[in-house]
Amino acid sequence: MDNLLNDIEEILLMGPGPSSIHPDVYKALSRKTLGHLDPYFIKIMDEIQVLLQSVMNTKNNLTLPISGTGSAGMEACFVNLIEPKERVLILINGVFGKRMQEVSTRLGANVDTLEFDWGTPIKPELVKEKLESDSYNLIAMVHAETSTGVQNPILEISNLIKETDSLFLVDTVTSLGGMEVKLDEWNIDALYSGSQKCLSCPPGLAPVSFSEKAYSKIINRESKVPNWYLDMSLIGQYWHQDRKRVYHHTAPINMLYALYQSLLLFKEEGASNVFKRHMECHLKLKEGLTELELDMFVEKPYRLPMLNAVSIPDGVDEADVRKKLRLKYKIEIGAGLGPLAGKIWRIGLMGHTARLENVERLLKALDRILN
Amino acid sequence: MDNLLNDIEEILLMGPGPSSIHPDVYKALSRKTLGHLDPYFIKIMDEIQVLLQSVMNTKNNLTLPISGTGSAGMEACFVNLIEPKERVLILINGVFGKRMQEVSTRLGANVDTLEFDWGTPIKPELVKEKLESDSYNLIAMVHAETSTGVQNPILEISNLIKETDSLFLVDTVTSLGGMEVKLDEWNIDALYSGSQKCLSCPPGLAPVSFSEKAYSKIINRESKVPNWYLDMSLIGQYWHQDRKRVYHHTAPINMLYALYQSLLLFKEEGASNVFKRHMECHLKLKEGLTELELDMFVEKPYRLPMLNAVSIPDGVDEADVRKKLRLKYKIEIGAGLGPLAGKIWRIGLMGHTARLENVERLLKALDRILN
Repeated sequence: MDNLLNDIEEILLMGPGPSSIHPDVYKALSRKTLGHLDPYFIKIMDEIQVLLQSVMNTKNNLTLPISGTGSAGMEACFVNLIEPKERVLILINGVFGKRMQEVSTRLGANVDTLEFDWGTPIKPELVKEKLESDSYNLIAMVHAETSTGVQNPILEISNLIKETDSLFLVDTVTSLGGMEVKLDEWNIDALYSGSQKCLSCPPGLAPVSFSEKAYSKIINRESKVPNWYLDMSLIGQYWHQDRKRVYHHTAPINMLYALYQSLLLFKEEGASNVFKRHMECHLKLKEGLTELELDMFVEKPYRLPMLNAVSIPDGVDEADVRKKLRLKYKIEIGAGLGPLAGKIWRIGLMGHTARLENVERLLKALDRILN
Repeated sequence: MDNLLNDIEEILLMGPGPSSIHPDVYKALSRKTLGHLDPYFIKIMDEIQVLLQSVMNTKNNLTLPISGTGSAGMEACFVNLIEPKERVLILINGVFGKRMQEVSTRLGANVDTLEFDWGTPIKPELVKEKLESDSYNLIAMVHAETSTGVQNPILEISNLIKETDSLFLVDTVTSLGGMEVKLDEWNIDALYSGSQKCLSCPPGLAPVSFSEKAYSKIINRESKVPNWYLDMSLIGQYWHQDRKRVYHHTAPINMLYALYQSLLLFKEEGASNVFKRHMECHLKLKEGLTELELDMFVEKPYRLPMLNAVSIPDGVDEADVRKKLRLKYKIEIGAGLGPLAGKIWRIGLMGHTARLENVERLLKALDRILN
């Protein structure tokens, strides 16, 4: 049997994640595996928590990576924070808002939604209206909607929710590490992300953070969390610095090395430099796309720097373009999801992918294919 | 900030997992990341499924690695196969049987148990008696109890369950890849394992397999699986060869490379050679322990080759011995869990760890520390 790994090509990952990986992160991945209760590994865990707190701008004690992908982070937040019949409001303008609705409905919550056209942002005035007539145990939204490239007005919505007793849950899968996320300042009670987007670590881990208010909800639940694997009160006992390290499950050691290295790279470059690099790449891409007569799907004020939705011109076979990019130019870009399938491409400029030379390489390739 | 990864030492992992990693698996981990819908990555997924079927001795179509650790595999099996109020019987003789009870109770099952002394096997005659008076939707047991080193009589129990309508769920976290696991022949309906034991891949993946009968239960459930992340009907749509690859969550690409490589190594060595190597190491260890006047905790017929529970002699500070092994001799062994804390050590001989030179190295170190 041939070893397929020998023939893996290096593909420039410009889809909606995973993003391209820094050489130091590959090196981190293959460091010698330690035991999950090894004293030296525990030092690394401690540092991961400090680095995550820094990238999230939080002092939350319960800040750690879940042993699963970003969607496990979503599942973890809902399953810990809501109990059957509790009232939940989900603000939806894309696939990941819909996924929140599905996850919380399956958990038996009483789910209400406010839906907005895909490609447009959540409208704070409608949220305000909703909150005047109704109250919720938890309100959830996506910061950066990976399926549409829309940035939602989190600060305005946060200011509305602050006036209520609701827990505030935010998906920062695509935003964290590529733009400002201010967990404490924005009064976020629970946040999840993924390792494989702007943090530029391979997929497999979901950084999460819970405020004191959220933690208090978890430990005062009427019923046990109906998901042992993701019970934050148990996982917290393994991760927390101030407690005995109680074995829960075997942590994914090498993936955690990789996350540690990704977070170190972020820290070394400095948050503001990283965000500036993402924005510069986005502006360069936008400029080049305009020259190619390609339009952005999202209006300017709501565009995400790291996830660029591009409208597919009439008469273009979008799948064929992606295939040529992948096979001839060794570049991956993403297709549209759900109702946007066939209507947009999604071009990711995340983490280590977000470099000007990569933007130029993609623009040249698109030019050759389309013209 | 210093990079802690630079000072990771190579520790010989002789605890209950993770086990030591083959150099080829480290190399696999750091292969270039591909997208989770990349055509070349999908080829690798296909091969992983074939290799997993082979190590499990099954033709089950729904055979794949869950994106989480072994405990996520346990959670996945229960949450997909049981609905609230359904009757479950758990056969318990250690931590992982107790964990099954906890997981299924949290999911709202009507859970009955049969408990046996830790360090002794499940007694088929008592299971037989139980099944004469009661019936269950699902019966679950651990094949190789990692917490005690006991091998449970799976064939006898399988023969009893075969006569009922119950689904049969088996934990093979510690056995798979180190001793025979015959999923189809033993009429197992659902099985989960972990990547970090005898398969010698880092922790982070949970191979699972579901029979046609189990799959039929899943797709005919009255209620949706109350765990979107682990819903096998959705995950199956991403993994199944005979269907369109529908995006569910971003697969942990590099961990899957590592699992693929581990499974290739297993195949290249050949199952019977691998099992023989594990058994030879176990016998060598037992011989050496006897010379050191150390006793096995489990009676001979029930001992696992890959997980050796050793009784701690009177007057020995067990934690101090483990500390010396780790710091001076760079060897990790495991402590006892729960009621066995302070009473046993757990010495793992799993996968790449299971080599005679490693056994000799441990025995020499133990000799120097104890004598």
